[in-house]
Amino acid sequence: MDEFDSKYALRAKRMKASLIRELLKMTQNREIISFGGGVPDPETFPINTLKRIAYDVIEKEYATALQYGTTEGDRLFRENLIRFIAEKDDIRGLDVDSVLVTTGSQQALDLIGRIFIDEGDIILVEGPTYLGALSAFNINGPRYITIPLKDNGIDIDCLENKLKELEESGELKRVKFLYTIPNFHNPAGVTMGLEERKKVIEFARRYDFLIIEDDPYGLLRYEGERIPSIFKLGDGERTLLLNTFSKILSPGLRLGTIIGEKEVIRKIVLAKQGADLCTPTITQRIAARYLETNEIMENIRATRDKYSKKLKTMLNSLEEYMPKEDSISWTHPKGGLFLWMRLPDYLDTMQFFDEAVNEYKVAYIPGSAFYADGSGKNTMRLSFCLPSESEIIEGIKRLSKLIKKYMR
Amino acid sequence: MDEFDSKYALRAKRMKASLIRELLKMTQNREIISFGGGVPDPETFPINTLKRIAYDVIEKEYATALQYGTTEGDRLFRENLIRFIAEKDDIRGLDVDSVLVTTGSQQALDLIGRIFIDEGDIILVEGPTYLGALSAFNINGPRYITIPLKDNGIDIDCLENKLKELEESGELKRVKFLYTIPNFHNPAGVTMGLEERKKVIEFARRYDFLIIEDDPYGLLRYEGERIPSIFKLGDGERTLLLNTFSKILSPGLRLGTIIGEKEVIRKIVLAKQGADLCTPTITQRIAARYLETNEIMENIRATRDKYSKKLKTMLNSLEEYMPKEDSISWTHPKGGLFLWMRLPDYLDTMQFFDEAVNEYKVAYIPGSAFYADGSGKNTMRLSFCLPSESEIIEGIKRLSKLIKKYMR
Repeated sequence: MDEFDSKYALRAKRMKASLIRELLKMTQNREIISFGGGVPDPETFPINTLKRIAYDVIEKEYATALQYGTTEGDRLFRENLIRFIAEKDDIRGLDVDSVLVTTGSQQALDLIGRIFIDEGDIILVEGPTYLGALSAFNINGPRYITIPLKDNGIDIDCLENKLKELEESGELKRVKFLYTIPNFHNPAGVTMGLEERKKVIEFARRYDFLIIEDDPYGLLRYEGERIPSIFKLGDGERTLLLNTFSKILSPGLRLGTIIGEKEVIRKIVLAKQGADLCTPTITQRIAARYLETNEIMENIRATRDKYSKKLKTMLNSLEEYMPKEDSISWTHPKGGLFLWMRLPDYLDTMQFFDEAVNEYKVAYIPGSAFYADGSGKNTMRLSFCLPSESEIIEGIKRLSKLIKKYMR
Repeated sequence: MDEFDSKYALRAKRMKASLIRELLKMTQNREIISFGGGVPDPETFPINTLKRIAYDVIEKEYATALQYGTTEGDRLFRENLIRFIAEKDDIRGLDVDSVLVTTGSQQALDLIGRIFIDEGDIILVEGPTYLGALSAFNINGPRYITIPLKDNGIDIDCLENKLKELEESGELKRVKFLYTIPNFHNPAGVTMGLEERKKVIEFARRYDFLIIEDDPYGLLRYEGERIPSIFKLGDGERTLLLNTFSKILSPGLRLGTIIGEKEVIRKIVLAKQGADLCTPTITQRIAARYLETNEIMENIRATRDKYSKKLKTMLNSLEEYMPKEDSISWTHPKGGLFLWMRLPDYLDTMQFFDEAVNEYKVAYIPGSAFYADGSGKNTMRLSFCLPSESEIIEGIKRLSKLIKKYMR
């Protein structure tokens, strides 16, 4: 053991086990109702179509689907993706070289961290933000500046103030990018408004930073009108748009995409060459053929119906069982997988997590896990996509009991 | 474009396009006979079995095979791998926590670079060595010390001398690991002898460095007796053993493995969490079920027969068509995919590469691509696995003509 210990790079010391993954291990027990992971309901996977496609792809396209592929991604998949994105985001005229296929969205975050972040660079993040993004960026040693979220997404005044401060202190040139999840935020469930999006683009130009727009949940809207992506609104300027098939098809395929200007995509391709040569060709070809069936929009509609009902059940249960106090509130997401709950300031959701799991048999993710600055102790993330509706009701009952016990 | 240019990390400037990938783009033309890529013959893929397994896995195991998996890898796959490795390498008693599944071997190299290499650390590599390893390690800014290869693999005296020099100069503590491909070396085709392996283990202990043993081709032995792995000989001490299914099943599945002590595997798991969360579960489950059919050894035997014939054809053609000069020689590999040719010192295989491809319609990889120190200008790598036997004969004829033209 010692012989390895003395050999680790400094970077390796920055690596921490994902708190979520560690916590989720505690929730394997079947008795526990888990609002923990952002794990899709397997009943949303289009297995009948996928099994036939997999069979055909291996039989007829093995010379491509089982062989090495290009680092950029399977050409057929990228072509079909471009049509899909045109429909989904109304983004037209994308060239195949503006699209890179990644091994899940996590790899996209990792590659972006690699090519942009030098030690001490400043990254603007939302508070709270997606934990996986922090773990991807962390190994490069950035400094985070956390901008709080409001009902319409990022607090745009706070963002502007921070940027002005950075300008005054001469640190603006160290700001590399803003990382944002504008639609149905993970973990907060909020959606960035149209005006906020336009402001973000304006600030990016004025203060010279890039925008990493992470959109895993955009297609899972349950009510209201679609708001155009930042990428669309800004004509792709300074922006990389990240998408994934994990929540709308299957996370086991590990298929993500980065869309951006050809030159920056080319740079990310170089990073990916060293990282894994290419994303599995077989999963790409399966997804490519799946996109051709046109079943995906139908399947997404069914997924939306399912999750939307579960969300309603959760919101109704919260309304019914949670203590009626001003200090307790939760977001009312219009889509996605997550709802964010705020408890009185004196409560620490990490402190009673063990009790929640082991005594009350209900799991959530303590909110502080999602803050780059360690705040958010009185918050928690609740995911409503995996448990059944009756489990959601029972789970919220249990959670309410626990919270009541700790209320002053 | 400018807005991205000013934002790149220093690390991004170290990234270069893989020369091989760039060269291979020139050889897409069907008229060209390519000895370039180390790309398996698709006729070796067991498509009939794989298509049925893929169908069944999606139908019956979708809740696992299409869902997120653990970062360590699918448990069933790792259990089946342990049995496979016991048979293949006579390594017994491995625990499931000693095995990590990676998205191809390239990811294993990348993760190893991340957790071990700080800027300026010393990495011992063979000359020539695998280009993909250099591109994975490069972004962390190591210094390479190149140890030449002989007929029995690494030049053990040279290795010892270098280590002594490093000890004297006080730099030994900066040496992190030796990266070696002991079996049927890529690109050199040579195999490290038993005595050399034992010496490497002895030196690793005495001079305190780790051994990264990359073994993609070990099962593709066409003649002679199997030599135990360094991992086996040294009881796993200080060693990480890398394997891949790319050459014995399908590269499109992108399945590699790292085997080592639990503590170091745990550390690599943390790095992988940030890199891609997990390797696709579907490809892992397909491979897991494939291992259960016991067809793999049969399929490997058929692959060996096919490649062994192609190797003989290439060796015979070289014998017949190449100029008979002491200054021209090539390795006689006992397995693997590659043969290494040495030409007179005054020749530069990079210089006539364009002419080879465009005029003579034959492709190879210029040897200098495989040297960390840029030497090897008069060498080339020839892969014999993809072209047919008649193409091999014709290709070697063409190559001989070209070389004769440049001989003094």
